[in-house]
Amino acid sequence: MKILVTGGLGFIGSHTVVELQNEGFEVVIIDDLSNSSEDVLKGIQAITGKLPVFEKIDLREKSAIQDFFKKHSDVTGVIHFAASKAVGESVENPLLYYENNIGTLVYLLQQLQQKPEASFIFSSSCTVYGQAEKMPITEDAPVQTAMSPYGNTKQIGEEIITDTVKVTNICAILLRYFNPVGAHSSTEIGELPLGVPQNLVPFITQTGAGLRKELSVFGNDYSTPDGTAVRDYIHVVDIAKAHVIALQRLLNKKNLAKVETFNLGTGKGSSVLEVITSFEKVSNKKLPYKIMPRREGDVTEAYANTDKANNVLGWKAELSLDEAMASAWKWEQKIRNK
Amino acid sequence: MKILVTGGLGFIGSHTVVELQNEGFEVVIIDDLSNSSEDVLKGIQAITGKLPVFEKIDLREKSAIQDFFKKHSDVTGVIHFAASKAVGESVENPLLYYENNIGTLVYLLQQLQQKPEASFIFSSSCTVYGQAEKMPITEDAPVQTAMSPYGNTKQIGEEIITDTVKVTNICAILLRYFNPVGAHSSTEIGELPLGVPQNLVPFITQTGAGLRKELSVFGNDYSTPDGTAVRDYIHVVDIAKAHVIALQRLLNKKNLAKVETFNLGTGKGSSVLEVITSFEKVSNKKLPYKIMPRREGDVTEAYANTDKANNVLGWKAELSLDEAMASAWKWEQKIRNK
Repeated sequence: MKILVTGGLGFIGSHTVVELQNEGFEVVIIDDLSNSSEDVLKGIQAITGKLPVFEKIDLREKSAIQDFFKKHSDVTGVIHFAASKAVGESVENPLLYYENNIGTLVYLLQQLQQKPEASFIFSSSCTVYGQAEKMPITEDAPVQTAMSPYGNTKQIGEEIITDTVKVTNICAILLRYFNPVGAHSSTEIGELPLGVPQNLVPFITQTGAGLRKELSVFGNDYSTPDGTAVRDYIHVVDIAKAHVIALQRLLNKKNLAKVETFNLGTGKGSSVLEVITSFEKVSNKKLPYKIMPRREGDVTEAYANTDKANNVLGWKAELSLDEAMASAWKWEQKIRNK
Repeated sequence: MKILVTGGLGFIGSHTVVELQNEGFEVVIIDDLSNSSEDVLKGIQAITGKLPVFEKIDLREKSAIQDFFKKHSDVTGVIHFAASKAVGESVENPLLYYENNIGTLVYLLQQLQQKPEASFIFSSSCTVYGQAEKMPITEDAPVQTAMSPYGNTKQIGEEIITDTVKVTNICAILLRYFNPVGAHSSTEIGELPLGVPQNLVPFITQTGAGLRKELSVFGNDYSTPDGTAVRDYIHVVDIAKAHVIALQRLLNKKNLAKVETFNLGTGKGSSVLEVITSFEKVSNKKLPYKIMPRREGDVTEAYANTDKANNVLGWKAELSLDEAMASAWKWEQKIRNK
């Protein structure tokens, strides 16, 4: 069974390719290398013993997508990671985000809707909930007005898919990620942020490695136990495994709706200070940090109710925050010593 | 001053080109002729004495848009009509609508944001209000979850423009049309629906002309004075003039916000039966119709509060429903006798 993984050299994409190959799926990766490296292929091969097929394609080129589906006409399953993902950048350059994240999605679905049947998995985000009223957040919590063009592209993506599956042979699963962190236990693949990391954990590990002077903690006056913002940090390998299970669900078609939405989180919220403490424990290093004002657009807390993923998908996060932080730190040390 | 009018051979587009040329603007039309005819150019020339420049371009082709802006590098004002507009078709083929209505908008704005300054007028719709709670509808009424992919593309279009103007030199005006009807008094241009008309007035005039056996009136049990649905029918020439005034406002920059939204309506609601009565009066013909069940997605009533357009834009609809129906009927007879 041949599966297209777009953005398959990215952080979550590469970990998912590993799990797919471990489960016997044949994988074709599309990536434009705009925020990833071809070296990731070697890491995937080192873990799985198999080099996935790789096509360097810019998915904004409609004709390139058409050519791809002519060449790989047996692809009817797509896991679509390829997208721009920096909130701040999306505010500065919204059109880049609308083009990269919406245009490419439309082109991919246009190819799939021509097939007798097709399966589609979409990388959505807990940002669609905004500051949800109730914790933990269930999938039926209302979608809020997006706080950034990035968040808006995730909401619009969900809407486009929902409208499309109604009138086509495509079945889709929307996976709303909470905060993916960590790296593969082999230390062959992990997160490779370009420039200054936008996310907490790579910023912590780079600070631990001495690349950054100190970590900025944005806000310690939130209404949370220690005053810092609370998120649901989930190990990327758990996220990757959820994609394989979601794909199997789409292929088995048992009690399957045209479109289904699942939260991918641990169900447990952790504050910024708790993440720092976890890092300090697993690295045996003191992490320098300073308290800064809140950042505009940051919510107080967001963590997942995972009942639906547990019960319907039959998936559960297995790795702890300490395990995630230890793997992220091991990965950071490896790439610094290269 | 050279202005690009996309979809300039369509119904509202062609009437706007006439008013722009009457006011001395130099117009370049882009149209892909997918739902219009090149003959419209002759109609515009007959009215204004001037043939606008016409470029047959499919706006989904990014490179064609780039080439256009290289060739017409002095275009910094755009009135963007080009879009697919049939609600039912959008449900059947959502991806066509997301590609035609979102992709093209992004490509146009990408060109404009490279200019030192630029003006953009967007064709939005009263569908963004859904069934508004209060009549008449003001511009600050909440935007409701779209009831069709078509409606969603209008909402998303507004969001993309709003995100973009914040960080660029583009100023934009969003015009939310109520129900444009009628034709130019010269009978040189008017509505040219492809196939079975999706809108009430062309269906009425085609029935009057004997092309359709009878009109279907969808629902006579609404909570309105006569039980049929109420809309705000506005003469297309009034709509066209509003675009010229909006453009002048953008160019004058007096008390201008980065993005402004205006309702374009008459402020008066008319029921389906009132529109039929108006047609019968101006045509001196009896119109056969039958009552059918309500259509899914139709709202009970929608008519505009026009205070903001009156006061800020300095524009007011001047033509009556009878005048609109008379012009539409005159146009229908002319195209049938060709």
